[in-house]
Amino acid sequence: MTTPRPDDSILPTAHSSPAEVRRAAREGRLQAPTAGLAYGFVQANLVILPEPQANGFLRFCQANPKPCPLLAVSEPGARSCATLGSDLDLARDVPAYRVFREGRLQATVSDVEAEWRDDLVTFALGCSFTFEHALQQAGLPVRHIEEGRNVPMYRTSIPLVPAGGFAGHLVVSMRPMKAADAIRAIQVTTRFPQAHGAPVHLGDPSRIGIADMRSPDYGDAVSVGEGELPVFWACGVTPQQVLMDAGVEFAITHSPGHMLVTDIPDSELALL
Amino acid sequence: MTTPRPDDSILPTAHSSPAEVRRAAREGRLQAPTAGLAYGFVQANLVILPEPQANGFLRFCQANPKPCPLLAVSEPGARSCATLGSDLDLARDVPAYRVFREGRLQATVSDVEAEWRDDLVTFALGCSFTFEHALQQAGLPVRHIEEGRNVPMYRTSIPLVPAGGFAGHLVVSMRPMKAADAIRAIQVTTRFPQAHGAPVHLGDPSRIGIADMRSPDYGDAVSVGEGELPVFWACGVTPQQVLMDAGVEFAITHSPGHMLVTDIPDSELALL
Repeated sequence: MTTPRPDDSILPTAHSSPAEVRRAAREGRLQAPTAGLAYGFVQANLVILPEPQANGFLRFCQANPKPCPLLAVSEPGARSCATLGSDLDLARDVPAYRVFREGRLQATVSDVEAEWRDDLVTFALGCSFTFEHALQQAGLPVRHIEEGRNVPMYRTSIPLVPAGGFAGHLVVSMRPMKAADAIRAIQVTTRFPQAHGAPVHLGDPSRIGIADMRSPDYGDAVSVGEGELPVFWACGVTPQQVLMDAGVEFAITHSPGHMLVTDIPDSELALL
Repeated sequence: MTTPRPDDSILPTAHSSPAEVRRAAREGRLQAPTAGLAYGFVQANLVILPEPQANGFLRFCQANPKPCPLLAVSEPGARSCATLGSDLDLARDVPAYRVFREGRLQATVSDVEAEWRDDLVTFALGCSFTFEHALQQAGLPVRHIEEGRNVPMYRTSIPLVPAGGFAGHLVVSMRPMKAADAIRAIQVTTRFPQAHGAPVHLGDPSRIGIADMRSPDYGDAVSVGEGELPVFWACGVTPQQVLMDAGVEFAITHSPGHMLVTDIPDSELALL
């Protein structure tokens, strides 16, 4: 007779270890977004592609490090990745996956064991949670967290560097701040090039092809206060958009907000 | 019979050593601004005060490092300062000095040997030339240099931290840039905290009490292009303004643009 371990029956929290969060996702107990779980550890965007497309996508990431900052690339077919964590299953440890076929979203599923193939290569890309933790620790406002919303994201006119058969335009996330806070936020996020790094733009949204800030292309609109500037960072939604635009035959990604929680401390990504 | 040395008869250039520039100033051959001379070496703002006021001014600099970044403080009465350079005379090596009495500019002179006193303490403060060299090396625009003008400077509503009997408001210099260049300029100038460091504001000038950018309080107006943001840095004119506002009985400073050229390489002030 076995007694259930306490952490098998409860949902993970900010104080859970990354392995506990991954186990909860693997066992189907966690199907929710991962924001705030295992606080202080790096969460990753996932992109999973068959090897021929993966080889091109790796060149694309190398050419576009701000939207696609590489944390790790798996060997073909591998479901583990030692640099991201031990006790880790790439096919089950994300709370929700998206499956794309012919460039279109086909299904959102809790694991991709049934889809797994020996030629699949997994890309783990840094995510804005890492720099948002650093902004909060610096006492800077993160409006969508204050307002309990998703970060607003916008398609822009900023071209990506075409490479490996992929191309398109940058998607950005936006956080409004007063000018002095924006200057400090540039300093803070510059320390985290593997989590999108410094902003790509600030001020007038029309300069980067955003017509209406109140209508984000993804996520939720947030309020912009008197005297605040919108500050724009490269966003991890960019690669999903690029994969769809390329009409790739088959791809798996995490579902937005449902990230892979790694064993890497946020501080390990800091340049200094 | 002595033959004049070649560098005694010509004006110093970008390729001169700092000691050659100082010697030209000392001998009265150089009475012009020092911008561009002995390129790659730190130039300094000077403030010279009797010891009682100097003790308070040192506390003021410590409390306001962005406008008053301390490079060196001399011993009372000393006319040399080893950390700034060898073969250096604080009373003669600046091409033009300003003498203030009772908070008012009394004279602009080529040396202050006649004014020298045993209780005078000299403050050398970092200057924007250092970060402008870094901006240029990063390929960023420095508009007033492009346009052959003095940098535009503005009195602001940003209060200084009162200390040592001194108080007032920040004076800023302004360089217009496109947003992406402004972000890069923040990164570049963050490396130089001893040369005013990162900007204090960008965007809407009225937020910091500047009513009309076309009418700078010091220096010359420069053109601001379509899609450019004004970017504002703390300025070394601030301490001169503060000394005048305090009505100090006696003070000497450099004359704007006529700096002390030190033996310190610009790169030595870089954080990393």
